[in-house]
Amino acid sequence: MIYLDNSATTKPFGEAADAVDRALREDFFNPAAAYSPAVQLHARIEKGRAQMLRTLKADTGKLVFTSGGTEANNLAVFGALSALRGRGRHVITTTVEHASVAGVFHTLEENGYEVTWLPVDAHGALRPDTLKNALRADTCLVSFMHVNNEVGAINDILALSELTKKHCPRALVHCDGVQAYGRLTPNLSVCPIDLYAVSAHKFHGPKGAGALYVREGVRIEPLFMGGGQEGGLRSGTSNAPATLGMLEAAKVCYRTQRELVGRLSGCKRALVEGLAGIGDMFVNGPPPEEGAPHILNVSFLGVRGETLLHSLEQHGIYVSTGSACSAHSHRESRVLAALGIGGERLLGAVRISFGAYNSPAEMPEVANRIRTEVAHLRRYRRM
Amino acid sequence: MIYLDNSATTKPFGEAADAVDRALREDFFNPAAAYSPAVQLHARIEKGRAQMLRTLKADTGKLVFTSGGTEANNLAVFGALSALRGRGRHVITTTVEHASVAGVFHTLEENGYEVTWLPVDAHGALRPDTLKNALRADTCLVSFMHVNNEVGAINDILALSELTKKHCPRALVHCDGVQAYGRLTPNLSVCPIDLYAVSAHKFHGPKGAGALYVREGVRIEPLFMGGGQEGGLRSGTSNAPATLGMLEAAKVCYRTQRELVGRLSGCKRALVEGLAGIGDMFVNGPPPEEGAPHILNVSFLGVRGETLLHSLEQHGIYVSTGSACSAHSHRESRVLAALGIGGERLLGAVRISFGAYNSPAEMPEVANRIRTEVAHLRRYRRM
Repeated sequence: MIYLDNSATTKPFGEAADAVDRALREDFFNPAAAYSPAVQLHARIEKGRAQMLRTLKADTGKLVFTSGGTEANNLAVFGALSALRGRGRHVITTTVEHASVAGVFHTLEENGYEVTWLPVDAHGALRPDTLKNALRADTCLVSFMHVNNEVGAINDILALSELTKKHCPRALVHCDGVQAYGRLTPNLSVCPIDLYAVSAHKFHGPKGAGALYVREGVRIEPLFMGGGQEGGLRSGTSNAPATLGMLEAAKVCYRTQRELVGRLSGCKRALVEGLAGIGDMFVNGPPPEEGAPHILNVSFLGVRGETLLHSLEQHGIYVSTGSACSAHSHRESRVLAALGIGGERLLGAVRISFGAYNSPAEMPEVANRIRTEVAHLRRYRRM
Repeated sequence: MIYLDNSATTKPFGEAADAVDRALREDFFNPAAAYSPAVQLHARIEKGRAQMLRTLKADTGKLVFTSGGTEANNLAVFGALSALRGRGRHVITTTVEHASVAGVFHTLEENGYEVTWLPVDAHGALRPDTLKNALRADTCLVSFMHVNNEVGAINDILALSELTKKHCPRALVHCDGVQAYGRLTPNLSVCPIDLYAVSAHKFHGPKGAGALYVREGVRIEPLFMGGGQEGGLRSGTSNAPATLGMLEAAKVCYRTQRELVGRLSGCKRALVEGLAGIGDMFVNGPPPEEGAPHILNVSFLGVRGETLLHSLEQHGIYVSTGSACSAHSHRESRVLAALGIGGERLLGAVRISFGAYNSPAEMPEVANRIRTEVAHLRRYRRM
């Protein structure tokens, strides 16, 4: 099996799976309990929380643990606006956000907020000038992603956040870091980002765990009511197994970051080289060397992405046609459409995303298989 | 170690931990992906969902998987009221609900709902007559728990739900089944309950998984926006590992239910017998034989519950003073206060809760240890 859908989810690191397993079978306590093994478990989680905060280069502020990236994005935007209690009704985001941000902004729109949906450039990035022209005196929140999940475009989060704070000092900046964390390090001691969301299963941690960074002094309100865990911001029994798994994965990613990013870039480069010469092939999003190291989105005209996916599957190679969230619904990619991509190129898009378990040495095989399948399928083109 | 805090959390069954582990290390796919191993994973989850629905004796309706009991309770009440869009502003609950229900109703109160907080009887149960007198033409939702988490009082959910539907046919009935599921079977083909919440880690499943039963025809709105998983009711990558662990735990509970309940009741009976003769001891809540089989709440006058907890801890026996959610905050029990319990008896309460890993044979040791510690601590009484 060659698994190349790491933007949908990743295989957990052994260390992460081991941590989950140990917390399930041995340290199964409720971390809020008063006796010593529970108190020790609680302390381990808090120690890991402080370590993970440092991976974001955040000297202050806090991490709120959530059930995943979707909850973290929802908590960030709904929670921050809720705490503002209606001060400011203008919010800004882009047309290429993940569903867990886009959906929140659609709900805001239904609830009386004025949403400015900013277009992105042909590579999928939000240009600072575009943002600058949209900022207003009454803008209270700006949300953009760090790395686009479908095409790997990288936003200049330093420029975007500084620009926002310069023109709208009171506006909050949320960044969806789900596809970035573990590969690209956001430097939150430099970037004036107030809220930053991550998801464990995107960086070789378990599903069911995520975190929201909240800058010191930024108030948010919880989505859930209950026992008051996570400083009142996320009630519900602390999910020690998944949290400890996430913390292990974060540790491995940041201990081996240079090697990991080298491996991902190496895979991408090797695959791009291997695919060279296939006719009517287009890279969607940024040029490979400019995008995120782990995401490559390509179209082969005359071949439906879905068809190619299932052909490759027969050979144990797993790719996707876009966001996993919409894989079952057979919708066309909203992101590619926002990049001005249509027609055969839109229908033909496949996303190939690399992870820590891939190696550049596998890529010639993948490239050859794609070449063969594309040639084969083009003989039957009926698009 | 003798772990007697199973109402706070339980040790997962081996089958549940194995299912989590396998899904982490082998079936790590995103169940929404289009290729075959992901589709098979999705199918396994859906098969398990149908099986778990049958454990509730529900012929129709659906189960929505959540991150746990707190989320399930929040989704039930907020989600149902949100779908009603303001039709009806009167809601009813009790004074002894878990924080994840009580907190929701406090928020509703802050948002203009009229909340009737019903008192319970001296054993902690909601009497049907009490509910009957509170029902009004404009009541739109009633929420009560199946089993109280601190004292083990069992509500007559059939009588309470039938009464509600008789007097307020359009009112929705939510039941917090977190402490009941796996021990007491709600028969949802008979009880006209619309929403029923459960939490995996309370029935020997993993933390981070829960479910909300939603009766057919009942509309709720999601708390999260995003990829539209769980039929649009709970966005976020399907947490396959925790969900499969929960489904395994549910299977074991219901396959072995008679034996399990017998074991729990046996533990409780053996402990009560062992404690007999200790002076100034009070059972809080229902008489032991009437309450839930797994919860015993007792006070030893002159001994603080917290002090006894830490004394027992020295001998590897783990109990609690009440809800784990408030264990760190050292608050007095809201539930016991609602039962009219105060003074030394309130301060002296400890909750002893049994699970599948306990056996009646351990209870003489526990009783003797309690007897010794209570006698010892009473020599230093300074309450």
